[in-house]
Amino acid sequence: MSAERASRGPERSSRDAFIATTAKLLRRRGYAASGLNEIVTRSGAPKGSLYFHFPGGKEQLAIAAMEHSGGQLQAGIAQLLASSEDLGEALARVLDALAAGLQASGFRDGCPIATVALEAASESEPLRASAAAVFDAWLAVIAERLRSAGLSAPAAERRALLVLAAIEGALILARARHDVGPLHAVREELLALAV
Amino acid sequence: MSAERASRGPERSSRDAFIATTAKLLRRRGYAASGLNEIVTRSGAPKGSLYFHFPGGKEQLAIAAMEHSGGQLQAGIAQLLASSEDLGEALARVLDALAAGLQASGFRDGCPIATVALEAASESEPLRASAAAVFDAWLAVIAERLRSAGLSAPAAERRALLVLAAIEGALILARARHDVGPLHAVREELLALAV
Repeated sequence: MSAERASRGPERSSRDAFIATTAKLLRRRGYAASGLNEIVTRSGAPKGSLYFHFPGGKEQLAIAAMEHSGGQLQAGIAQLLASSEDLGEALARVLDALAAGLQASGFRDGCPIATVALEAASESEPLRASAAAVFDAWLAVIAERLRSAGLSAPAAERRALLVLAAIEGALILARARHDVGPLHAVREELLALAV
Repeated sequence: MSAERASRGPERSSRDAFIATTAKLLRRRGYAASGLNEIVTRSGAPKGSLYFHFPGGKEQLAIAAMEHSGGQLQAGIAQLLASSEDLGEALARVLDALAAGLQASGFRDGCPIATVALEAASESEPLRASAAAVFDAWLAVIAERLRSAGLSAPAAERRALLVLAAIEGALILARARHDVGPLHAVREELLALAV
């Protein structure tokens, strides 16, 4: 390994560790309750490198974390939506995967964006815009699948908003109840709609 | 006014002021970002009376605020759902009222419960249970309206979960985008479902 790569390696891994730790905390408890000191401690990365990678501090770090989580979930949704030619079945698989992840995490891992979106919608324009961009990217993936199932572009956009809204809302209700029932109910309702 | 009523009056109004101020802050920015000092300052009530009314501190105050907001919104939903014999029209009026309130508040006043529910779902059992109780009360009102429109009890329960989830999710998307479009889309989709 060249000296250049050796020096780039740990820097990259510190950056990744900050992002992964922040993404997890934002998902589980939101922005205001996730302190920079805890992020540094949990990430295991040197504190001195935090402002090297994120000179904008917590807000910049949160935006990077939301982009990271948003991209991961977008890839997962796209994969599941492409996994069945049947639209209802494809949507059901997305709901099932979210329910399984929520249950496996002890009802901690719901939407990685929603909590920050709600906290920041009226408080931080950069965080709000970042959350909106993630939601828009997810909506585009869902709308594309709906168009490929035969819906017109306006109908697909409208239905995609219903699908994402129902998923987001069901994740709130499921986390509040510690019960995946709301995700199952939305799954059944969307299956019936897709017929 | 008797001496007894005169002394009870200000006590009651301090309590109400703490609750109203807390409810507003929880709705706009959530639990972690709403500090007790700010609540006291904004409420205009004497700081000394905070622990008199709420010996359990911020958590107890937040629970009282969520009960207050939850009850208000429940009454509003029930009234709108009863305002038309047509189920689709009744649901559309709920969405319209939420969209109007959100827009009038500069996209600040979404669901008064959701932010705290997401922040606290894994962090505070009393806050989680309080949020779940409010959601359950709203679901009961919606399910009752659906049953009165002819749905069986299990179908009404399932559809009520879809309706509330879609509303909650649309409020997140609308706040993140600063655009009531998601609420309008869900309104149209629910209207079509209700036919």
